[in-house]
Amino acid sequence: MAVITISREFGSGGRVIGEEIAKRLGYYYLDKDIIAHIAQKTGFAKEFIQQRGEYAPSKSLFSYGFLARNQDGISPEDMIYREQCRIVLETAERGNCVIIGRNADYLLRDREDVLNVFLCGYKEEKKKRIMERYHLDEKEALNLMKRVDHKRSANYQYYTEKEWGKAANYTICLNSSELGEEKTIEIILSCIRRYRHLRNATSRINTGLFFVTK
Amino acid sequence: MAVITISREFGSGGRVIGEEIAKRLGYYYLDKDIIAHIAQKTGFAKEFIQQRGEYAPSKSLFSYGFLARNQDGISPEDMIYREQCRIVLETAERGNCVIIGRNADYLLRDREDVLNVFLCGYKEEKKKRIMERYHLDEKEALNLMKRVDHKRSANYQYYTEKEWGKAANYTICLNSSELGEEKTIEIILSCIRRYRHLRNATSRINTGLFFVTK
Repeated sequence: MAVITISREFGSGGRVIGEEIAKRLGYYYLDKDIIAHIAQKTGFAKEFIQQRGEYAPSKSLFSYGFLARNQDGISPEDMIYREQCRIVLETAERGNCVIIGRNADYLLRDREDVLNVFLCGYKEEKKKRIMERYHLDEKEALNLMKRVDHKRSANYQYYTEKEWGKAANYTICLNSSELGEEKTIEIILSCIRRYRHLRNATSRINTGLFFVTK
Repeated sequence: MAVITISREFGSGGRVIGEEIAKRLGYYYLDKDIIAHIAQKTGFAKEFIQQRGEYAPSKSLFSYGFLARNQDGISPEDMIYREQCRIVLETAERGNCVIIGRNADYLLRDREDVLNVFLCGYKEEKKKRIMERYHLDEKEALNLMKRVDHKRSANYQYYTEKEWGKAANYTICLNSSELGEEKTIEIILSCIRRYRHLRNATSRINTGLFFVTK
């Protein structure tokens, strides 16, 4: 049993690659469905969670201070992040899963059965993929790429105090444009084998410790 | 025929891994011997080249302006870097080689037969390796690690205007402490196969373009 976390530049094929890996290994795949789980638990609308969930509460920490908070002083962003952490940790605890984004590499940093992957790619290839997937023209795709990567980066830095996309934060980083999807999948699968036997030795996570509410 | 460049955090085993890959593939291995080549060509002492060659001319660009320059306005650091670029490009042009450091990933950015690898590792493992290799105590090893990585990072940023150790700059980044030497070597070898056939199609480098003298 093991856990694979996949962080990724927007347009580098993280979803397709993650889904394919989960399928081949028979693993549970956690990506967009986390939003429905959070909605059920917190009562927030899915659209609201989608906008706030994976992204930094605000570019400016100053303006963040003025966001609405409930009676415990917790903002909606904190509530969403807290619930998201809980789901990531519970999913990992059950094992045999692929988790996309959500700072899962950081949340699971004390486990030894986790393979942390970062996927990047060439601008041209990513643009093409985004244009096709979201039916956008070139300019719109490039704008969206910039915006989403900026938000992912800001969110990661805000909650983990580490740098998003820096090789030292992951076990392997792969350029999926250069290697191709099949080779990328093959490398990840070849790495996961050594994590499977570690699972039983490392059930030492106390989920309560991980509710980071900055 | 193909080229493998290996950039690496100090203590992550880049030399051992690079040598082993070169040996298994029957490739030429370019690392420390570049210093002897530069010494022969420029007349500088090997120690001087070692100190200045792979590292940024100075932490302060201001003080750099006051360094000695020859009649063409070229500083010793520029001369060393220029010679280093020439050797990297010529070595790549002959193909079938492993090149350690020297911003080779950047210098060879217009070729299509290059596999750019970045190796990182856990602090504890790197420290242990440095202590053994250089016969240092714990504190000395940690200081050296910090100093060397800082210099490599500054040099890379100075000459390439890109960020050292950022996943997007390389084809694959591997944590050698986590994966182990053998698995790291295996992944690199499995990737190199697809570059071999590209060699003949991409002899389009004009070495003259690459003499960056900022």
